[in-house]
Amino acid sequence: MIKVVLDAMGGDHAPCANLEGVKLAVERGVVDQRRVLLTGPQQVLAPELAALGLSGCEIIDAPDVLTCNDTPVDAMRRKPNNSISLGIRAVAERRAAGFISAGSTGVVVAAASVGLPRLEGIRRPGIAVAITGEGGVPFVVVDVGANPQPKAVDLLQYAIMGSAYYRGTLGNDRPRVGLLNIGTEDTKGNPLTKEAALLLREAPINFVGNVEGVDVFAGRCDVVVCDGFTGNVLLKVSEGCAEYLLRTTASFMREAGIDGRQVLQKLKQRVDYSEYGGAQLLGVDGGVTICHGRSGPEAICNAIRFALRAAGAEVNHHIVTAARAAAAS
Amino acid sequence: MIKVVLDAMGGDHAPCANLEGVKLAVERGVVDQRRVLLTGPQQVLAPELAALGLSGCEIIDAPDVLTCNDTPVDAMRRKPNNSISLGIRAVAERRAAGFISAGSTGVVVAAASVGLPRLEGIRRPGIAVAITGEGGVPFVVVDVGANPQPKAVDLLQYAIMGSAYYRGTLGNDRPRVGLLNIGTEDTKGNPLTKEAALLLREAPINFVGNVEGVDVFAGRCDVVVCDGFTGNVLLKVSEGCAEYLLRTTASFMREAGIDGRQVLQKLKQRVDYSEYGGAQLLGVDGGVTICHGRSGPEAICNAIRFALRAAGAEVNHHIVTAARAAAAS
Repeated sequence: MIKVVLDAMGGDHAPCANLEGVKLAVERGVVDQRRVLLTGPQQVLAPELAALGLSGCEIIDAPDVLTCNDTPVDAMRRKPNNSISLGIRAVAERRAAGFISAGSTGVVVAAASVGLPRLEGIRRPGIAVAITGEGGVPFVVVDVGANPQPKAVDLLQYAIMGSAYYRGTLGNDRPRVGLLNIGTEDTKGNPLTKEAALLLREAPINFVGNVEGVDVFAGRCDVVVCDGFTGNVLLKVSEGCAEYLLRTTASFMREAGIDGRQVLQKLKQRVDYSEYGGAQLLGVDGGVTICHGRSGPEAICNAIRFALRAAGAEVNHHIVTAARAAAAS
Repeated sequence: MIKVVLDAMGGDHAPCANLEGVKLAVERGVVDQRRVLLTGPQQVLAPELAALGLSGCEIIDAPDVLTCNDTPVDAMRRKPNNSISLGIRAVAERRAAGFISAGSTGVVVAAASVGLPRLEGIRRPGIAVAITGEGGVPFVVVDVGANPQPKAVDLLQYAIMGSAYYRGTLGNDRPRVGLLNIGTEDTKGNPLTKEAALLLREAPINFVGNVEGVDVFAGRCDVVVCDGFTGNVLLKVSEGCAEYLLRTTASFMREAGIDGRQVLQKLKQRVDYSEYGGAQLLGVDGGVTICHGRSGPEAICNAIRFALRAAGAEVNHHIVTAARAAAAS
């Protein structure tokens, strides 16, 4: 029975939104409550779970509560029994296949890097995010911030991991991989992209060459590979640009006397990255999902669905197989 | 009398759109036709100009026509009398204050780097682009692709040049400068951003610290400083994201039976970067404006307006003064 462990205390609206997310997932048949473990202070969570009719969820008591002022190092040294570290430990001990948190990305990445072994053959983990593009089809960007200064071999591994993740959770047998660059010609870019292009061409993936920023929303590829600095900028610029345009569209429609609520609602859904269950830390032995700090019940429910899907599809097994093939070639 | 020189042959719709752009600028009183020089084959341009009533424009005969297959090196070695090289030469010889082209960015940057001296104290040129953000207020991004691997001192100089450009053309005496990063804390980023932050803090500019991708459209700063790789991705992701959302908005409005033409028209204007006259190559002794290849008459007319404004405001003089102050501090 595949289980997931949820950080009940991470995020702006924790623990309420997180527990309501579990309730939603149970009500919708996404998961049986006995398959959900929760980390957080037992005395806080037990009555809340009882009130929500979720007493079948197991609580892993994590009395140390993190604040936004805790650095990753603080979190692990001074508050070892925090809800993130104990959630990662549950995955390390195979009590759950995946861990989900809407807490600090820095703490989750640090705890996972320390607490979970790397997947065989993988040098550095990368964070993958699925974003909706042209025609409502998602594309996945790896890395969006785990490693701001990767080597070319890391980009190769992001391509392999991103392909396996796409295949396992978003349903495309041969996802097209693009290397994010500042021109489509081979001569464009920096030393990192030039070296990575050579490796990607030889890898057991469906590499379609360089893609530019303007291509990613146009559906030119399914997996966008880049360093964590650029990927983070890509992700956050998209988010900021979309929010700005939605605000502007709403204001222009109001001025024109148009009732655009339905259109805006659909647009909001389009730019809501939580639809795909949050960011995935790929490359560690176990599933790790990082949700937006603003996550509400719907986002948490989606994260549970995708964490189970990734575990069921054995994404990590496929990553290891592909990494072996790449190393042998 | 400040003059500008326009590459009549650069761009997807050259020479027609370019010459119609001049006509628009003349009709709107942006410029007197005797202040516009044009580069391109005399035999092509002379009859076109006569037909448009623009015989007052001076033609600099540039018989070598570039194609999209000409690399920058090809352009300069094998076709020395092309419309870009001769336009840059006109600026170098002080026959015009600024050069405008909708041709290949690579060729324009190469020709300007070879043909124009660096401004005193400036190590490497950078390309600046103004984008409309929150409330319709523009922000300027430097560099969007001249140098994919700058040093920290280059980012400092981009900040100085971007500030002078913003002040001179967009009217804000103390533009706020932000350093594009993947977190607002000082500890975030890569070695380049960490070193640049120290330099920016000491510089004679209005530095407001790190900004993230999500902040740039929210109006958190007026000048966004970054390396040319990241800046190019920022620019093109914004472009792609905006185009995708406009298409999606149009389709959702159609489905909802809403006549949204007026709203879409206004949105299109908001995301049209040519409103600010195209990208500026900052750091060379003379004005250089690079327009989008797709530029139509309106974009060319705006480019002429901004090139004249930058020259009139003595942007380059202010850059040199500020660079001296920064070097002395």
